[in-house]
Amino acid sequence: MTVGKVLFSFQGVPGAFSHKAGKLFADGLVGLGKAEFVPCETFADVFAQVTNVQCQYGVLPLENSSIGSIVSNYDLLWMHPVAVTGEVVIPIHHHLLGLPGATTAAVREVYSHPAALEQCRRFLGQMSTMTPSAYFDTSGAAKYVRQRNDLTVAAIAGDLAAQEYKLSILQENIEDFPLNQTRFGIIALANGDLELPERCPAIPYKFSCAVTLDHKSGSLANLLTCVASLGINLTKIESRPIPETPWHYRFFVDMELDRVDQDGAVIVVLKDNTNSYKVLGRYRAWETTK
Amino acid sequence: MTVGKVLFSFQGVPGAFSHKAGKLFADGLVGLGKAEFVPCETFADVFAQVTNVQCQYGVLPLENSSIGSIVSNYDLLWMHPVAVTGEVVIPIHHHLLGLPGATTAAVREVYSHPAALEQCRRFLGQMSTMTPSAYFDTSGAAKYVRQRNDLTVAAIAGDLAAQEYKLSILQENIEDFPLNQTRFGIIALANGDLELPERCPAIPYKFSCAVTLDHKSGSLANLLTCVASLGINLTKIESRPIPETPWHYRFFVDMELDRVDQDGAVIVVLKDNTNSYKVLGRYRAWETTK
Repeated sequence: MTVGKVLFSFQGVPGAFSHKAGKLFADGLVGLGKAEFVPCETFADVFAQVTNVQCQYGVLPLENSSIGSIVSNYDLLWMHPVAVTGEVVIPIHHHLLGLPGATTAAVREVYSHPAALEQCRRFLGQMSTMTPSAYFDTSGAAKYVRQRNDLTVAAIAGDLAAQEYKLSILQENIEDFPLNQTRFGIIALANGDLELPERCPAIPYKFSCAVTLDHKSGSLANLLTCVASLGINLTKIESRPIPETPWHYRFFVDMELDRVDQDGAVIVVLKDNTNSYKVLGRYRAWETTK
Repeated sequence: MTVGKVLFSFQGVPGAFSHKAGKLFADGLVGLGKAEFVPCETFADVFAQVTNVQCQYGVLPLENSSIGSIVSNYDLLWMHPVAVTGEVVIPIHHHLLGLPGATTAAVREVYSHPAALEQCRRFLGQMSTMTPSAYFDTSGAAKYVRQRNDLTVAAIAGDLAAQEYKLSILQENIEDFPLNQTRFGIIALANGDLELPERCPAIPYKFSCAVTLDHKSGSLANLLTCVASLGINLTKIESRPIPETPWHYRFFVDMELDRVDQDGAVIVVLKDNTNSYKVLGRYRAWETTK
């Protein structure tokens, strides 16, 4: 690691939404001047950078409000000795980006990540002269438009990608749902005692865990009832298959806690009402409109 | 529709796993001789064929035991006036397919659907001379190999695709998890009264519904407890975002019922404990080892 620097890994090329989320988090944590960002090709690489102690933090998209969870990242969270230490929610506004001088009417090819193309289905449906093509990420598509150097080629990506590759915004906010947001988790290496990553400094805070349950009637109902009886609000439940045993699931559960010591009570509930559990983190949720 | 024929729409080209699942279902329902299969480009097209009364049935992959739900199909189920009228679970064995005369060692390019590539991660990790590339579906990749007519090009797809495009199986069962299975739903146009699609003829049967809940502590726990109190086993719960209201969810719930009239009790529970609900079907689950 660079001396005095705090390193963040993220998936994609500079200008990606993960890069933007990481920048906002870093700004609040250590100041942007101290942060350095390490682009990675895959999400597995983002984890590897953290578990190999190359980077102190990794930035992971966990969920988009329009299209749902990035489920592969939940599976990776389960497999790696990391903890979620923070959460950043940012609005995802997609823009049609082209070379300076390009116009929306003249665009023939549009590149972006399939998820972004899906989030702009209405706009693309109206633009019959544009052929959408999948690209490995949104900011990568912006970079590609810069390289192609052709006025009829455009990308769908965010404002940071426009800045990064000096592209013009031909059409702003073309996402189907203007409230489109993505929730990013900031991961760090878990300390030795995986059951108890460091205490969260502020209330309310979020508590995330993964559990497996008995394959019998009422086991999920029972767990959720115990959590509800503590007066705790569930903010998210995601089921993921356990590939070795078809149609059995691992559940990822996020809760909002409003007392510093409430996590202890939750852990007692997990111990008593699950087959196995892993605490994935206690952390502060942070929303921005930037 | 062709006179006397029963038409099934499916996504992909002939030889797709959806085609295989549809054939098995049709064989049990009307006999293969009476069934005709209509390949569609997208899942939305599969629904359109059914809602436009071009096809009586549509075949939809809903969930794979290794990688999880095909969530876009859950969203489409919610939006369309269709009911699930049957379920087929088939083993998904992936094979490396090449032209007759090709050998595994000589293969340089491998094409398949990204989900299939993901399900064969271990095999591909060991084959350092092969470059995997995404293709829009597994059987489409097999068709492409036939067209390329090059001994160094292979596809990852199933046995029906091998038959369909006269390819050789260079390496059998290369999926990471040998118990890999996919659950397909067979959809039909819902009759007028969406709340009560036709009764299921056999027990046990499956009951699927989608619900929205109050955004308050314990609402999911409460619903699941009411279901459990009927002695009913939940086989699956899937949460999907409601794009208009970030971080609110629609839950898709599958249950296994073992009394013919138990669906009435479930509907009372849904009426009393949800904000809104849609019955997606009552149907027989059918598993095959073919």
